[in-house]
Amino acid sequence: MAKELKELTKRADNYSQWYNDLVIKADLAEQSPVRGCMVIKPYGFAIWEKMKEQLDKMFKATGVQNAYFPLLIPKSFLSREAEHVKGFAKECAVVTHYRLKAGEDGNSVMVDPSAKLDEELIIRPTSETIIWNTYKGWIHSWRDLPIMCNQWCNVMRWEMRTRPFLRTSEFLWQEGHTAHATREEAEIEAQKMLKIYAEFAEKWMGVPVLQGVKSETERFAGALDTYTIEAMMQDGKALQSGTSHFLGQNFAKSFDVTFLNKENKPEYVWATSWGVSTRLMGALVMAHSDDNGLVLPPKLAPIQVVIIPIYKGEEQHVAITEKLRPVIDKLQELGITVKYDDSDNKRPGFKFADYELKGVPVRLVMGGRDLENNTIEIMRRDTLEKESVNFDGIVSRIEKLLVDIQQNIFEKARKYRDDHVYVCEDYEDFKTRIKEGGFFLCHWDGTEETEAKIKEETQATIRCVPFAYEQTPGVDMVSGKPAKYRVIIARSY
Amino acid sequence: MAKELKELTKRADNYSQWYNDLVIKADLAEQSPVRGCMVIKPYGFAIWEKMKEQLDKMFKATGVQNAYFPLLIPKSFLSREAEHVKGFAKECAVVTHYRLKAGEDGNSVMVDPSAKLDEELIIRPTSETIIWNTYKGWIHSWRDLPIMCNQWCNVMRWEMRTRPFLRTSEFLWQEGHTAHATREEAEIEAQKMLKIYAEFAEKWMGVPVLQGVKSETERFAGALDTYTIEAMMQDGKALQSGTSHFLGQNFAKSFDVTFLNKENKPEYVWATSWGVSTRLMGALVMAHSDDNGLVLPPKLAPIQVVIIPIYKGEEQHVAITEKLRPVIDKLQELGITVKYDDSDNKRPGFKFADYELKGVPVRLVMGGRDLENNTIEIMRRDTLEKESVNFDGIVSRIEKLLVDIQQNIFEKARKYRDDHVYVCEDYEDFKTRIKEGGFFLCHWDGTEETEAKIKEETQATIRCVPFAYEQTPGVDMVSGKPAKYRVIIARSY
Repeated sequence: MAKELKELTKRADNYSQWYNDLVIKADLAEQSPVRGCMVIKPYGFAIWEKMKEQLDKMFKATGVQNAYFPLLIPKSFLSREAEHVKGFAKECAVVTHYRLKAGEDGNSVMVDPSAKLDEELIIRPTSETIIWNTYKGWIHSWRDLPIMCNQWCNVMRWEMRTRPFLRTSEFLWQEGHTAHATREEAEIEAQKMLKIYAEFAEKWMGVPVLQGVKSETERFAGALDTYTIEAMMQDGKALQSGTSHFLGQNFAKSFDVTFLNKENKPEYVWATSWGVSTRLMGALVMAHSDDNGLVLPPKLAPIQVVIIPIYKGEEQHVAITEKLRPVIDKLQELGITVKYDDSDNKRPGFKFADYELKGVPVRLVMGGRDLENNTIEIMRRDTLEKESVNFDGIVSRIEKLLVDIQQNIFEKARKYRDDHVYVCEDYEDFKTRIKEGGFFLCHWDGTEETEAKIKEETQATIRCVPFAYEQTPGVDMVSGKPAKYRVIIARSY
Repeated sequence: MAKELKELTKRADNYSQWYNDLVIKADLAEQSPVRGCMVIKPYGFAIWEKMKEQLDKMFKATGVQNAYFPLLIPKSFLSREAEHVKGFAKECAVVTHYRLKAGEDGNSVMVDPSAKLDEELIIRPTSETIIWNTYKGWIHSWRDLPIMCNQWCNVMRWEMRTRPFLRTSEFLWQEGHTAHATREEAEIEAQKMLKIYAEFAEKWMGVPVLQGVKSETERFAGALDTYTIEAMMQDGKALQSGTSHFLGQNFAKSFDVTFLNKENKPEYVWATSWGVSTRLMGALVMAHSDDNGLVLPPKLAPIQVVIIPIYKGEEQHVAITEKLRPVIDKLQELGITVKYDDSDNKRPGFKFADYELKGVPVRLVMGGRDLENNTIEIMRRDTLEKESVNFDGIVSRIEKLLVDIQQNIFEKARKYRDDHVYVCEDYEDFKTRIKEGGFFLCHWDGTEETEAKIKEETQATIRCVPFAYEQTPGVDMVSGKPAKYRVIIARSY
């Protein structure tokens, strides 16, 4: 067994450490010398690229276009939208100078004090302000609407406590920003993008999500409504995996963006914004992986099938390779990513453990005996089941297996999630059980006081008012006051 | 004629202003409120996306993998490679603080003086330092080599005089960084990537380029050799369109990156880096476009074919649309991007001018007469030639025409370039003729003094020692000293 694998912490021992270990050992990412900023390694980045590619297609199919807006935002922009400033003008990286000069020792560099900016610039924590400042120039009449732009970029929020993918100072994301003539159209857009996120999470990542709307406290700073998809990790904690915001006319008013309606009267523009980030990588890892390493859904796996020949001597090596070549070619023709690993500088046992660690969905092994018997060994990573099968028909078997694995991973995560959603009426009961994780469906009186009390006493937060739950009024388990609906309460990442 | 088009400056009147106008009017990009930083608008970004997609494929076909390294670099890293510090530790955006706080008036934000960083961070002007610091952890033995990583990202160099795409403080680019066990392998890699850039420029952008090697003065800071592709714009100036650097062991030594060779002895790693940026957008616009607007090569045009029906009344609208529908479907099946513009809020003349301005390669127009006669009008943007043709067989005609246009754009640019490459022996002659632009093939004595004199007296620089030129020794036209070879001298962007 590979040394790396042996050192992987078990989930049951320390779930959090297991995650941190796995990110490193599976070559997804590593810490950089800059606090809270990570290096995304090629294997990790290949997964992110697949995510991007699919999401980008889904966005464009709705008419969204990509664009690019500046990294740096004038400090004063952040203060223009009153709620936004409270949320984002805090932990920001601030550019104050634009030049270095040689230090007096000749070997070092120092900041040139004469190159001080008149107005400090902020590295974007999110781009509503710079984009709405730009949209002002693009929007004049109802004919200019809707505008639906997205950008794939890096953003920075100076986080004090960071974890790879889940919370980093710099992260990669996409941020969509749309402008509409009517309130209704903007609300529909915000909900449409949430549905795209949910579809992506479930059909591509194999991660079941609950869709819902955030409480006022948990809203995006500057939004009238924040919609969210909430996924459950294997420790029962929630991970907010994507959000879509109905921004009303807040940013249009702050940046004075109006349009002439069909009656030639000026109106403020209606807005949405929506984003998912490299945080999805964390959700993917935490939702499916096991004590042997990553478990990747075939649709996002950089390598979908690995084929390992076991041979003695060059003659057998050539014979096995020749036998396998048509299968490799056929799989590639079908668009399946195959790696044929016949390298002789690692033992088969090392390779097996390594590809398990990397989450390759299907492993094929062929040895001398297989060659004689026209068989091949096939293993699926999600269940670790392996069997020896007839070599003929292996291609269609693999095709079917990849579909099965994608489905099984999702079903397994959904079963886990469904088994850990509890209807709860009693706060004392809640306080005990929340320690074990899970989503708790509880009546809430709608007050910030109750929300704050739950958070303080249990570290759990209101994740959302779920859409797919038939609501009936009841009694708030904390305050005893009347409650109109239930919310999902959970501890979260 | 569209108002926007009427206002487009003519190339002959003011080439520089024509370019600036065109970038704005064709919706490619616009200035942002942050000095020297641009907004890349959806139409411009769609071209950049096509460039990225193709280049990315070409890189990956050579074994390159994408990754992501941090935006921010500790200030001290820049001073570790002696030449690099001279080149890059100058006009950099410097992050000194990580928090804002509310101003005393309650409506503004100010930098929180208590949140000062111990060490200032620089927004990457290029990533050799942070990447080689990372590679140190990845490279131990010859088995770990080669490493071939690329990242698509934003970088920042605080430019004093900026022009959209050509020179901006923030720009988008890709930077490849490879690590090799031998000098030879690294040199081959650097040249291989240059060839990929040249192939991309010529076959995709339709821009002919001269490949060559830079003089020592013009080298990348920290490189032993910088290879370049130089394109000629329509004013006879050179535009450096891509560079690939053989970095020797400079960065490996600065960041102490060694590997154990097959004899188990430590050696420093050999390096290359190579990049192209959104500057290519400038080259594309300047190389082909005319006084009517953009001329885009079909392979990079966001819309390859626009179809405009001219109809009176809804009945004719429907009839023409029904006639055209199978053609639109067929073109889309063939992977050709078609826009059917039957909007009734703009006159046909406006649409014609607008799609010309946007550089759409092929325009089809069908009116009532065409419907009767089974004909259609087809116009090619590169020559502005139009003809009325039989409707039958229009799809294969378009397919062929797109290939023709791609080829013709390249041939036209190549003819222009070849007509403006001069062999020159006389400095006085050179000084007169350089004012009209062009590439001058001149003997150079190889000294920095001569290079500096030419630059000072004529604003022209040595672009490169061209590869595809049979060299014979001669006499330097400036110093009269012996010269081993000729170089390309030109004014440049």
